[in-house]
Amino acid sequence: MARRTNTRERLLTTAAELFRRQGYAQTGVNEIMQQAKTTSGSFYHFFPTKEDLVLAVVDHIGESLDTEVFATDPETTDPLDRVFNVLESYRRHLVENDFALGSPLGTLAAELSESHPQVRERLATLFAGWAQHMHDMLEDAGDRLPADLDRRTLAEFILGTVEGAVLQARVRHSLAPFDASIAALRSHLAMLAAGSQSAAPRASQPRPTPQPRTTTVDWRAW
Amino acid sequence: MARRTNTRERLLTTAAELFRRQGYAQTGVNEIMQQAKTTSGSFYHFFPTKEDLVLAVVDHIGESLDTEVFATDPETTDPLDRVFNVLESYRRHLVENDFALGSPLGTLAAELSESHPQVRERLATLFAGWAQHMHDMLEDAGDRLPADLDRRTLAEFILGTVEGAVLQARVRHSLAPFDASIAALRSHLAMLAAGSQSAAPRASQPRPTPQPRTTTVDWRAW
Repeated sequence: MARRTNTRERLLTTAAELFRRQGYAQTGVNEIMQQAKTTSGSFYHFFPTKEDLVLAVVDHIGESLDTEVFATDPETTDPLDRVFNVLESYRRHLVENDFALGSPLGTLAAELSESHPQVRERLATLFAGWAQHMHDMLEDAGDRLPADLDRRTLAEFILGTVEGAVLQARVRHSLAPFDASIAALRSHLAMLAAGSQSAAPRASQPRPTPQPRTTTVDWRAW
Repeated sequence: MARRTNTRERLLTTAAELFRRQGYAQTGVNEIMQQAKTTSGSFYHFFPTKEDLVLAVVDHIGESLDTEVFATDPETTDPLDRVFNVLESYRRHLVENDFALGSPLGTLAAELSESHPQVRERLATLFAGWAQHMHDMLEDAGDRLPADLDRRTLAEFILGTVEGAVLQARVRHSLAPFDASIAALRSHLAMLAAGSQSAAPRASQPRPTPQPRTTTVDWRAW
């Protein structure tokens, strides 16, 4: 049983990486089986169709968002630092794979949104969960951000920014456009924080004590 | 001759739309020929390979950026309004095609950056041209933005934001994430402008008279 589970896991990891590298349609089932060193028997046992595979890959990416992108670093207690830690994890991936891989969800989203409605819906759920995670960090920042700031809008903005920044870095084989976006986001948050300092503290919601979150967003139940 | 040119144009327009809708690998040459109502003889006359076609499609999109996205509306003389007109043109496309089509360049970029280096290079050129266009508008804004603001960084930020915002809107079939990004960008520029008002005017560069630009960026020679 352990061995079978490992095979499934290996197929998912291999497929996820190939899809990020070269897209879904361009990646053949044979290529996945070869790289994952498995037989067509086990492949089709786990994934009767290629669409079953990509749906499982999306779920698999959702799980890795919890453990890789939004994993709580106990040393970082400042919620705004944690926001930039998330962005830093995308930057690290770009460096580590030399711009070969796109955004885990964004690459599938760009290719499959129209042709694969089920995939699109599941991706939409994961992106909403991502934005919720980001929103929670911004909530944790309490009165360091202005009381009347819509944190949901800001979370969506940050999500869009990081997706666009990864794409730009990858196409241009340069961290410069990525770093430009992060620098602008930093200045955006700094200007918001400066505006907050000159205004009254948030009345309705006292500033929470910053502490590492342990909540796990269920990316699929959103 | 006119007829042949029209055939080539029709093939490019059809392929560009299919690629934006469902990606490159998923779009067969037969599907393009059928939708463009042309024969395989003319197809292969113009485009010996599918890669020749996609390279021509990218050039074709570059030309349409000049005429559609960055076309100067003579009624809009305010450079910052022109920035938001550009973003509005992406929003209009999302509405008009009911989220079916991705960003003209971004969709190809996400799928082909790693597997098709020649396509990637040409896309990089076009994106750099896009950012240059945006940079010029921000320069035109003169001392309405702070003197020490790096307008190139800001232009790259806006480019990343709009690409990410289109992707989010498309995956989630909603304008909400797109509008959230635009609202945040508006507030970003407003905060920058407010900072500029309280500082000394830009010494090195007097504010130019706002006027419609007629310069055409050569998207390929960048």
